[in-house]
Amino acid sequence: MKQQSAAEYIHHGQTPFFRLPASTTPESADAVILGVPFDAGVTYRPGARFAPYELRRVSALMQSFHPGCGVDVFGRLEVYDGGNVTVAPFDRAQSAALIEHRVATVIGQGAVPFVVGGDHSIALPVMRALRDRHGELAVVQFDAHLDTSDGETWGDDHHHGTPFRHALSEGVIARGALAQVGIRASWSHGGEADFTRRYDSLVLSADDVEERGVRDIASAIRERVRDRPLYISFDLDAVDPAFAPGVGTPVAGGLTSREALRLVRALAGCNLVGMDLVEIAPHYDHADVTLQLGAQLLFEGLAVLAQRRR
Amino acid sequence: MKQQSAAEYIHHGQTPFFRLPASTTPESADAVILGVPFDAGVTYRPGARFAPYELRRVSALMQSFHPGCGVDVFGRLEVYDGGNVTVAPFDRAQSAALIEHRVATVIGQGAVPFVVGGDHSIALPVMRALRDRHGELAVVQFDAHLDTSDGETWGDDHHHGTPFRHALSEGVIARGALAQVGIRASWSHGGEADFTRRYDSLVLSADDVEERGVRDIASAIRERVRDRPLYISFDLDAVDPAFAPGVGTPVAGGLTSREALRLVRALAGCNLVGMDLVEIAPHYDHADVTLQLGAQLLFEGLAVLAQRRR
Amino acid sequence: MKQQSAAEYIHHGQTPFFRLPASTTPESADAVILGVPFDAGVTYRPGARFAPYELRRVSALMQSFHPGCGVDVFGRLEVYDGGNVTVAPFDRAQSAALIEHRVATVIGQGAVPFVVGGDHSIALPVMRALRDRHGELAVVQFDAHLDTSDGETWGDDHHHGTPFRHALSEGVIARGALAQVGIRASWSHGGEADFTRRYDSLVLSADDVEERGVRDIASAIRERVRDRPLYISFDLDAVDPAFAPGVGTPVAGGLTSREALRLVRALAGCNLVGMDLVEIAPHYDHADVTLQLGAQLLFEGLAVLAQRRR
Amino acid sequence: MKQQSAAEYIHHGQTPFFRLPASTTPESADAVILGVPFDAGVTYRPGARFAPYELRRVSALMQSFHPGCGVDVFGRLEVYDGGNVTVAPFDRAQSAALIEHRVATVIGQGAVPFVVGGDHSIALPVMRALRDRHGELAVVQFDAHLDTSDGETWGDDHHHGTPFRHALSEGVIARGALAQVGIRASWSHGGEADFTRRYDSLVLSADDVEERGVRDIASAIRERVRDRPLYISFDLDAVDPAFAPGVGTPVAGGLTSREALRLVRALAGCNLVGMDLVEIAPHYDHADVTLQLGAQLLFEGLAVLAQRRR
Amino acid sequence: MKQQSAAEYIHHGQTPFFRLPASTTPESADAVILGVPFDAGVTYRPGARFAPYELRRVSALMQSFHPGCGVDVFGRLEVYDGGNVTVAPFDRAQSAALIEHRVATVIGQGAVPFVVGGDHSIALPVMRALRDRHGELAVVQFDAHLDTSDGETWGDDHHHGTPFRHALSEGVIARGALAQVGIRASWSHGGEADFTRRYDSLVLSADDVEERGVRDIASAIRERVRDRPLYISFDLDAVDPAFAPGVGTPVAGGLTSREALRLVRALAGCNLVGMDLVEIAPHYDHADVTLQLGAQLLFEGLAVLAQRRR
Amino acid sequence: MKQQSAAEYIHHGQTPFFRLPASTTPESADAVILGVPFDAGVTYRPGARFAPYELRRVSALMQSFHPGCGVDVFGRLEVYDGGNVTVAPFDRAQSAALIEHRVATVIGQGAVPFVVGGDHSIALPVMRALRDRHGELAVVQFDAHLDTSDGETWGDDHHHGTPFRHALSEGVIARGALAQVGIRASWSHGGEADFTRRYDSLVLSADDVEERGVRDIASAIRERVRDRPLYISFDLDAVDPAFAPGVGTPVAGGLTSREALRLVRALAGCNLVGMDLVEIAPHYDHADVTLQLGAQLLFEGLAVLAQRRR
Repeated sequence: MKQQSAAEYIHHGQTPFFRLPASTTPESADAVILGVPFDAGVTYRPGARFAPYELRRVSALMQSFHPGCGVDVFGRLEVYDGGNVTVAPFDRAQSAALIEHRVATVIGQGAVPFVVGGDHSIALPVMRALRDRHGELAVVQFDAHLDTSDGETWGDDHHHGTPFRHALSEGVIARGALAQVGIRASWSHGGEADFTRRYDSLVLSADDVEERGVRDIASAIRERVRDRPLYISFDLDAVDPAFAPGVGTPVAGGLTSREALRLVRALAGCNLVGMDLVEIAPHYDHADVTLQLGAQLLFEGLAVLAQRRR
Repeated sequence: MKQQSAAEYIHHGQTPFFRLPASTTPESADAVILGVPFDAGVTYRPGARFAPYELRRVSALMQSFHPGCGVDVFGRLEVYDGGNVTVAPFDRAQSAALIEHRVATVIGQGAVPFVVGGDHSIALPVMRALRDRHGELAVVQFDAHLDTSDGETWGDDHHHGTPFRHALSEGVIARGALAQVGIRASWSHGGEADFTRRYDSLVLSADDVEERGVRDIASAIRERVRDRPLYISFDLDAVDPAFAPGVGTPVAGGLTSREALRLVRALAGCNLVGMDLVEIAPHYDHADVTLQLGAQLLFEGLAVLAQRRR
Repeated sequence: MKQQSAAEYIHHGQTPFFRLPASTTPESADAVILGVPFDAGVTYRPGARFAPYELRRVSALMQSFHPGCGVDVFGRLEVYDGGNVTVAPFDRAQSAALIEHRVATVIGQGAVPFVVGGDHSIALPVMRALRDRHGELAVVQFDAHLDTSDGETWGDDHHHGTPFRHALSEGVIARGALAQVGIRASWSHGGEADFTRRYDSLVLSADDVEERGVRDIASAIRERVRDRPLYISFDLDAVDPAFAPGVGTPVAGGLTSREALRLVRALAGCNLVGMDLVEIAPHYDHADVTLQLGAQLLFEGLAVLAQRRR
Repeated sequence: MKQQSAAEYIHHGQTPFFRLPASTTPESADAVILGVPFDAGVTYRPGARFAPYELRRVSALMQSFHPGCGVDVFGRLEVYDGGNVTVAPFDRAQSAALIEHRVATVIGQGAVPFVVGGDHSIALPVMRALRDRHGELAVVQFDAHLDTSDGETWGDDHHHGTPFRHALSEGVIARGALAQVGIRASWSHGGEADFTRRYDSLVLSADDVEERGVRDIASAIRERVRDRPLYISFDLDAVDPAFAPGVGTPVAGGLTSREALRLVRALAGCNLVGMDLVEIAPHYDHADVTLQLGAQLLFEGLAVLAQRRR
Repeated sequence: MKQQSAAEYIHHGQTPFFRLPASTTPESADAVILGVPFDAGVTYRPGARFAPYELRRVSALMQSFHPGCGVDVFGRLEVYDGGNVTVAPFDRAQSAALIEHRVATVIGQGAVPFVVGGDHSIALPVMRALRDRHGELAVVQFDAHLDTSDGETWGDDHHHGTPFRHALSEGVIARGALAQVGIRASWSHGGEADFTRRYDSLVLSADDVEERGVRDIASAIRERVRDRPLYISFDLDAVDPAFAPGVGTPVAGGLTSREALRLVRALAGCNLVGMDLVEIAPHYDHADVTLQLGAQLLFEGLAVLAQRRR
Repeated sequence: MKQQSAAEYIHHGQTPFFRLPASTTPESADAVILGVPFDAGVTYRPGARFAPYELRRVSALMQSFHPGCGVDVFGRLEVYDGGNVTVAPFDRAQSAALIEHRVATVIGQGAVPFVVGGDHSIALPVMRALRDRHGELAVVQFDAHLDTSDGETWGDDHHHGTPFRHALSEGVIARGALAQVGIRASWSHGGEADFTRRYDSLVLSADDVEERGVRDIASAIRERVRDRPLYISFDLDAVDPAFAPGVGTPVAGGLTSREALRLVRALAGCNLVGMDLVEIAPHYDHADVTLQLGAQLLFEGLAVLAQRRR
């Protein structure tokens, strides 16, 4: 798949992800990148609705070859910008259905969906669609929060703090196959991780990453993933606010950008079936610091896929 | 011409000007909006290269009907986003040639070019192309500066401070047919306006607008324009930095946003053959204040055209 | 009602509106200021959920005596900070019910509610509660938009673009008693004002204010209000983005800050029964420009009440 | 007096005011511009200590000829950047003495001092030095606040809210010769203007300027000034926060930039003996909007002097 | 001690630290958090006066349970927001006396004071009050600067660069019991650390932390603290500007957020008698990056106390 | 060489680098710091033209003694602020000639040039001048990009992406003596490093630095430098955007500030003959985070020189 040249890009004055061809219905594709401009599930700082637009802009700076893993990503993969999912901004349930349907269509055409949110609530319909196709998933969730809250906290059961409780209890994620990395936000009580532990999840704090090192952590994660269909759910608040100021619910003391990038890269060889990148609130970003990291993380995920599809 | 609906726009996740169809080669069009991402002619704050991109984003908020003059702009006019002119970012002469050629093509197809810069140096090739087609122009230049400098000031004769000296001396603008509105920046010497006055230009300061009122000023301008082919060149620094902080060379004490909008609107009935909107430096903007005004000014220009092409 | 002294305020380190006493259940009060941290009805730039918090902060700078109309506002009026209405952030219908109930309680205690939103959708439950008490209202709506959309635009009938259609059709606002001031955003079609005109509303653009002057406009508005119970609904986007950058849906060419303040002040003598201040998105504000104006507008409204309750 | 050329300025990489020669002890000068990096008298938003530095930067953009009044300012006047007054940042009394001494030296050399603060408390020592030389002053104070507070408000008698009480009671300002323009901030009680009115001052609000117009207001001010030695004290908060966001104590509803500039310009013909420009807090500014206006206002003051010294 | 629920917090619309009960005179408390809105001791970027207000806002996001050390902080400790100390903004000596008196009262009631500045000069009266109660202190000072300057540097002996010279020479800190961590700013001369070394202080640079690791450094610090009453003085400029941009005197090359948090956490088991958090200048912060870290650091300090008071 | 005291600095109100004496023609000097306000070679975010000005401002905070390496930098070295090179902003070839000439003059006087850009294209004339004096150079290039592009990418052979291709092919840099550190941006194709590898350059990614550690990397670099004349070319985008947001072409995953500072420091003992610091775009910076790091890096380079010139 050829990116536009810089000149072509300048010529058109518009920005599909990574300057890729835009098509809502590509005939054949290895991967399709979708935007989901939806942030009605945010409890604190809203604005993730604008992230797909801004990530397109910033991703246009990136070229095809990843020198860190020596792979020509868009040389190996047919990737399309699939446009945005048309959500119902005032109806979360309907939006979830629309997202699931759209993702299912992409999967049905044999492509791997890469989804740029939007808030973290959009991960649930994406994972549901993937489970329907591939069976129970292994999930690596980068996050400062467990996101396994129940309906009591905010008087509602479907917002950006609940998707992984649903995914675990619905069997979308296989038992023991959820790794939660970067967890560090304070809890309302000591039992807040009981739910996820009941499903034998691997809960890793940012301090764990510092103390054990990226290699050891990556190895522990891969043990959980094994040969299962892998979904990466990347909430940018897993990363420290210094590296990702523009997020919905920042928490000090997170991953560094290099740790985040290397941990995604370390999943090379796994059977990646989908990825999301969520919770970027562009109007809290500065000088595109968060967006640059987001674009690079998405590129890392595509490189993981590219290395599989040689 | 139908804009995309909001839903269609969200679906595609990209932004042509005003959500219009994008086509570099529309078969028939009343107007074509071009971006020129070029700011190699800026002497102070650079960044206008990003203005076409950002103005597309902000213009997407606007609808088709202008309630102030009661006209359905995109109902009356076929307008396309013609993409960006592919400039040579490191070669000003070549860029000018590329701009002139591209604009000439648009004109040749019978469409009126609306050009979003870029710095003010891009106005010269646009005006040259228009003169070649329509003969000597009347020009209404909104600006804090005369832009009639010579090559001594910066050791160069083709930057954003010189286009109107060339346009006057080359006969691109008809004698007595240049109105310069918003002029107020300090001059290096008392004779700085001698050049433009030699061509019998109308030089109006922002204070003149306040003292005489919009109606009287508009009438004085129209007297200069008469039935000549009219080009509007809108440098956003004509407007006060409160209303347009994101410009290359701001000067306190400028036009208000309402004065600017009403002065463009007052050109209804004139034979508009082209318009530019230049010198927006988006990274100096705040909360899109400058960009919102820019999009509205462009819309006013289109409404002037729409009222003529009933 | 005594404000805290600056020293008392510094001592407590917290900020009720205007340093007033905070009480959710004041025994007797002339006015109660409520915050409504709700922005689930926003179609463009979210963030108004934070406006009550930030307006409290900025309002702490203000003293009791209004030199422009010569009235000691908090000397004449008992005013309390009634806290925020506890809304359901993920349920618009329930939130509307909670707002209406809370406002009804305030009214029932004989106090005039001043409500700081939040997005414009919160105005409907406030107006409903007031109508239930006082009968059909006269409403002066400051706004760039008519806010009389129907459910088709965004696939939903209750967001920040619809409250005045409901208020008119439900008879909350008396026929001929709605004045809409600052209207200027582009419309999707020429008939967009048909609905409000069917109710004989007075629609005034920002240009009308410039052309006719504040005194004449104020007089036209008062003719509509007469001795009816008056509700002021102030959407900050009525004001130009230069004076109010931090709003949800900015539109260039709006009112100046002085026009806005003077138009509210000109309602002195009317039977003010309530006021809202909505659509401030603080994270798009700069140097508190929007918030400063918001606090002053709220103070103007209180001064209107104070002049009545001598 | 010749400014550096742009090339010379770029060559040196440093910024005296208006690219003028820098000299703390010029042999002969018509005017000396001094910076006073002192903000220990600020009650709200600090930072004016950085204003002299930043105003130097922004003033470098300005040329010598003022087209509005047709005068070549630096052609007529010998003006030097006198550097900053070395204040004692932790000792207000000592700082006041240092300022007064430095200004007295400038005056003693026959030059008119233009002083860039710093907060408004620095105006008192400047005015004292001028009175010692020229006798009782006429003062035009642009301000949102009266600045005649006593020691009770903040438990201290010498901060940025008190200089004009001292100046009036000490006889620094002649009875009836103080004009306060832009006054509008709320007062703690109705008698807050009693003090200044006891000295027969002229108190004009920003609304007065709008209602009566610049010409009428200017004429009323000049009646107070007459042929007395005139001091202009310009607190940027006189101007609306839209035009001057970067100030210490902003108040909505102020002067426009054009009104401010024209009111200073209207003092041409008066016997200007000094001017200050205070209360700019650069880190609250955006895109240099406030600083641009400040530089232009300083230039207007110099132009007033230049017109006298033909 | 129960925090407000999120709903209660939203209801009240105000923000005590961590949503705790606010009381200036709690009957019994394990800890009291005080704000000190005082920055008259700052030599470079002012604004720390606003830090207590903004830190309250950001701390409201935090819950009770610290997953990193497995302790329910507000379950174990009675903590109150004690409001702000009423300082004399224009009198440093009086302010110091007021701070010392207020802290002494808190200590007298058996509570541990946590003090949110304000600039670093406020640490001295806090430490004095603690020494009067507990005897000579051990102090862990996180800082980029030694803060042991004398009166010559700025012509004054009591500003934010001098508190630890006074504390050492007055015997407030025990000999050998001061650990200074993060030290790296350039010195005016090679002997700048002579003073602190004369008292056998432990001076550790940020590079030391990187080279030796957090565990080793923590162990070296604890050797100095031993069983002495421990005071933590946390100047946010100890941390790198990437993690803490909003400080008064930033220095590149500082601690990471994780190092800072882990170093405080490593003091668990020590006899913590007080803590401050100083030098946050909120208007230089972005997206609350600095404030988020500050709130987390304060929470770490409370967790140290909570682990002792099981 | 004595810096100004803080008082002297405040007195003059201007800012030479590090408060050093400013002289374009110092009689004798160990080092001269030059600004090059030139960014006409930038392909993405412009603005480096303002970096010399802003770096002067921020460097004024720094003192003479470097505690990390125990050297009194300005005690040992005579250093002058040599002002800015007067470039031709619209002529890249002429500007390169002017830079080379000016640097050659500095070298001819026996001083080591420290050059603050400006974009990276300015490094080529600096290196050429140094090679002419000292013979083939060793170069340590800190960068996210190889900067060895050819003329095809942007239709031009002399912009900020090409200097090291010219330097290698012209023999300015000795074979095997180029170390490129921080390299990580995506490439257009897999052979992008072929050119530099043909010259046996050492290419090190930011991940390499994390994995191998600063000591090991420094040792590998020094092996390439040996006793050759050493030039350090520091493009701030080598550093992660968290630590250096204000750069022209940011790339996530870069060096930390401490790694960058320590890697420069580790060059002590080498024969440093020149250094540049380029690609800072101040208007994309926040709270001077990037500038603070830049000033510290420049100071590290001066300290390397100072340790040699004992």
